[in-house]
Amino acid sequence: MTAPRMSVKAVLAAPTMGQRVVVHGWLRTRRTAKNLSFLVVNDGSAQESLQVVVDCHTQGHDQIEDFSTGVSLCVEGEIKASRGQQQIELLATAVTLIGAAPNYPLQKKGHTLEFLREQAHLRARTNTFGAVFRIKDSTARATHDFFQRAGFYCLHAPITTPSDCEGAGNLFAVTVPDTEASGSAPHFFGRPAYLAVSGQLYAEAAALALGKVYTFAPTFRAENSNTTRHLAEFWMIEPEVAFADLNDICTLAADFVQQVTAQVLRDNVAELEFLQKHYPALSLPALEKLSQTTCARITYTEAIALLAQAVSRGQRFDHAPTWGASLQTEHEKYLAGEVFSGAVIVTDYPKAIKPFYMRSNDDGKTVAAMDLLLPNIGELVGGSQREERLDLITARCAELHEDMSWYLDLRRFGTAPHAGWGLGFERLVQYLSGMQNIRDTVFAPRAAQLLYF
Amino acid sequence: MTAPRMSVKAVLAAPTMGQRVVVHGWLRTRRTAKNLSFLVVNDGSAQESLQVVVDCHTQGHDQIEDFSTGVSLCVEGEIKASRGQQQIELLATAVTLIGAAPNYPLQKKGHTLEFLREQAHLRARTNTFGAVFRIKDSTARATHDFFQRAGFYCLHAPITTPSDCEGAGNLFAVTVPDTEASGSAPHFFGRPAYLAVSGQLYAEAAALALGKVYTFAPTFRAENSNTTRHLAEFWMIEPEVAFADLNDICTLAADFVQQVTAQVLRDNVAELEFLQKHYPALSLPALEKLSQTTCARITYTEAIALLAQAVSRGQRFDHAPTWGASLQTEHEKYLAGEVFSGAVIVTDYPKAIKPFYMRSNDDGKTVAAMDLLLPNIGELVGGSQREERLDLITARCAELHEDMSWYLDLRRFGTAPHAGWGLGFERLVQYLSGMQNIRDTVFAPRAAQLLYF
Repeated sequence: MTAPRMSVKAVLAAPTMGQRVVVHGWLRTRRTAKNLSFLVVNDGSAQESLQVVVDCHTQGHDQIEDFSTGVSLCVEGEIKASRGQQQIELLATAVTLIGAAPNYPLQKKGHTLEFLREQAHLRARTNTFGAVFRIKDSTARATHDFFQRAGFYCLHAPITTPSDCEGAGNLFAVTVPDTEASGSAPHFFGRPAYLAVSGQLYAEAAALALGKVYTFAPTFRAENSNTTRHLAEFWMIEPEVAFADLNDICTLAADFVQQVTAQVLRDNVAELEFLQKHYPALSLPALEKLSQTTCARITYTEAIALLAQAVSRGQRFDHAPTWGASLQTEHEKYLAGEVFSGAVIVTDYPKAIKPFYMRSNDDGKTVAAMDLLLPNIGELVGGSQREERLDLITARCAELHEDMSWYLDLRRFGTAPHAGWGLGFERLVQYLSGMQNIRDTVFAPRAAQLLYF
Repeated sequence: MTAPRMSVKAVLAAPTMGQRVVVHGWLRTRRTAKNLSFLVVNDGSAQESLQVVVDCHTQGHDQIEDFSTGVSLCVEGEIKASRGQQQIELLATAVTLIGAAPNYPLQKKGHTLEFLREQAHLRARTNTFGAVFRIKDSTARATHDFFQRAGFYCLHAPITTPSDCEGAGNLFAVTVPDTEASGSAPHFFGRPAYLAVSGQLYAEAAALALGKVYTFAPTFRAENSNTTRHLAEFWMIEPEVAFADLNDICTLAADFVQQVTAQVLRDNVAELEFLQKHYPALSLPALEKLSQTTCARITYTEAIALLAQAVSRGQRFDHAPTWGASLQTEHEKYLAGEVFSGAVIVTDYPKAIKPFYMRSNDDGKTVAAMDLLLPNIGELVGGSQREERLDLITARCAELHEDMSWYLDLRRFGTAPHAGWGLGFERLVQYLSGMQNIRDTVFAPRAAQLLYF
């Protein structure tokens, strides 16, 4: 075969009628009638498949009964305008079976997500998961594009870390098996090591040298919960900015969500249209609005008042909204979904419910924290201005029972106001793809009792 | 202050004479003579610093003795053409000290890399590490740019994995401390879990659905070696391509190295010029050549013959080059550095020294493997065409004592030729920055007995 190789995406994006091309892919369906067969071929490059017409002149047409759903194949043919639903088709001059697929588990359309979770090694071959993973790729690209445009440097913070600085507990230990775990050998790293729950403290050190940095890397929580919202392994996006305050990073978060959403809307039209048809949680109008509207901003104290008003009007919550307590997911969804009908940023949370590194406000009761909330999702972004004053951060670090001298050095030597946030990447992909279960945004999801392959 | 805030990079890149700006940063040096002080201010945004002139009219000039190396500060002033070495300077109307830096450890220029390794939380504030980490950022950006241009989708393969499919050993275990490690609780994931040494097997599953994918993520090896070439935690770039053979991915590797190098040369002129002046291992002519020259390609058998010829001409190696044995780093450096004076790809290695997933060649003795070798570095890229034939891969998997049924499914259902490689990202950064010790390419390096912060 001497015609140029092309992806289905390239053929469909800019078809030249009459051009001869070679396409490789997998057979989605075949329909054979009299002397004509119609093959729907997808190679993963795009949501759309290519219709291939095989007639009695096509080399290999005598083996057409072997072309079953799931086989891999090679087609050479000529691009033609189509008389069917699709705009173009490939009139095959030769078809070749590459890999057979007897008893292929994904024969039919419309398998349930539950069934596909048990076929996770194959599910990216379906329309749904092809769409989700291409949207996820676009979201990752848009993330890098956003920060690079804004002058941030990408930082690789360490994954193996000595400490649990979030104070969230639920750490995974990293050991060398059969020696360290049994206590018969010293620690590989010379001290106990854990999987990172955040890259923030390192990002602070980097921002106080390079100005603006972001991490985009896996983080880990050994949470023993089996929910549709939590993973034991997930990717976090964590920008950190020197000479910045709470207001600056609220703007950064709002801009990020807006611009990333706009880019995905632009780059994944076919994927989003497919998913919207099949998954009611995905609302393209809501995404359009998110990409065009400036985030509302309220304080935690105002949020509690709004929730209390709602209760007084008859709204029921499992947890009563009380000043001093964390906002529950039900509260967050209500604020974003019902009160603001879109993204809202809540700032200045009570000090007692937030980590040691957040900057104390002058009222003595609150810290310069911020969360960005979305309808249906709740918290997407959580961040703060960091405590840059040596005396105050020293006092908070003393509670940690850990050697934080390197972290205090950042305040000893040329300290500066700085601020940043963290965003759970899979939760953003959930919002952009309409997947209700976060496990359906991950190629090989990890959670308690879940390690399928 | 009402003048617009600008980064040093923005001021220097497109200065408008007479413009009033506000700049934040850290003081590198101060020189005071009579009524004039000259401050060298760097904010991490660029290799270059901004010269700030403080005279007796500048607000805050009376505190100028407090401005010591390492302090953070804010300057408002007017951009002026400079009479000194630099093209422009900032004539300050106001200077404000933000954070003092008494006893700052990085007072002098010219600290050794060894000393700076012990100040890893601060070293990104030096010219050397600022340059390295900005080059690293550019290299990461160029990596994503390359694969996105080429139609690859970014894949997040799992970090916690059930198996050691490289057969390399040296795995870290992931456990929940105090329960699982002591044997008193069941495994968190329901089975033993380890940190990934590669995302390849998952990338294969993804490529056989999406066509072309790449991972760019941390990987881990519990290698108990203390060398300048190895880390326990490092980032790998792993593309995987369906319907591709060994030749295709040799071309992909050559193109990748060429285009990424060209992009870094274009985007990091100041960083590279600084490093070349101070680190003789960095050769800009060698990088220019790498970015412009097509990689040579030889087989392993030819490589052994070339090495044997060298020995017969008097070249000494610690390990005699012998058909059937792995190429040692000394052999790789000799081939790239002395024989080819640049990058060279070696293909078709003996089957016995390569992992189970590599495709058997028809000679029965070799597999469709490839390594890309660089002068001074040795192996940068290692990859192969994968065994796509069900009977052959089944036989190889039987040696593994692991349930690989999901991996065999990829060959049962629509199997296709596919191929990919892995590239150690920090080693590439080493090559592009001239750092001799790989630990100097990582913000917080991890190795045996090394977990500084």
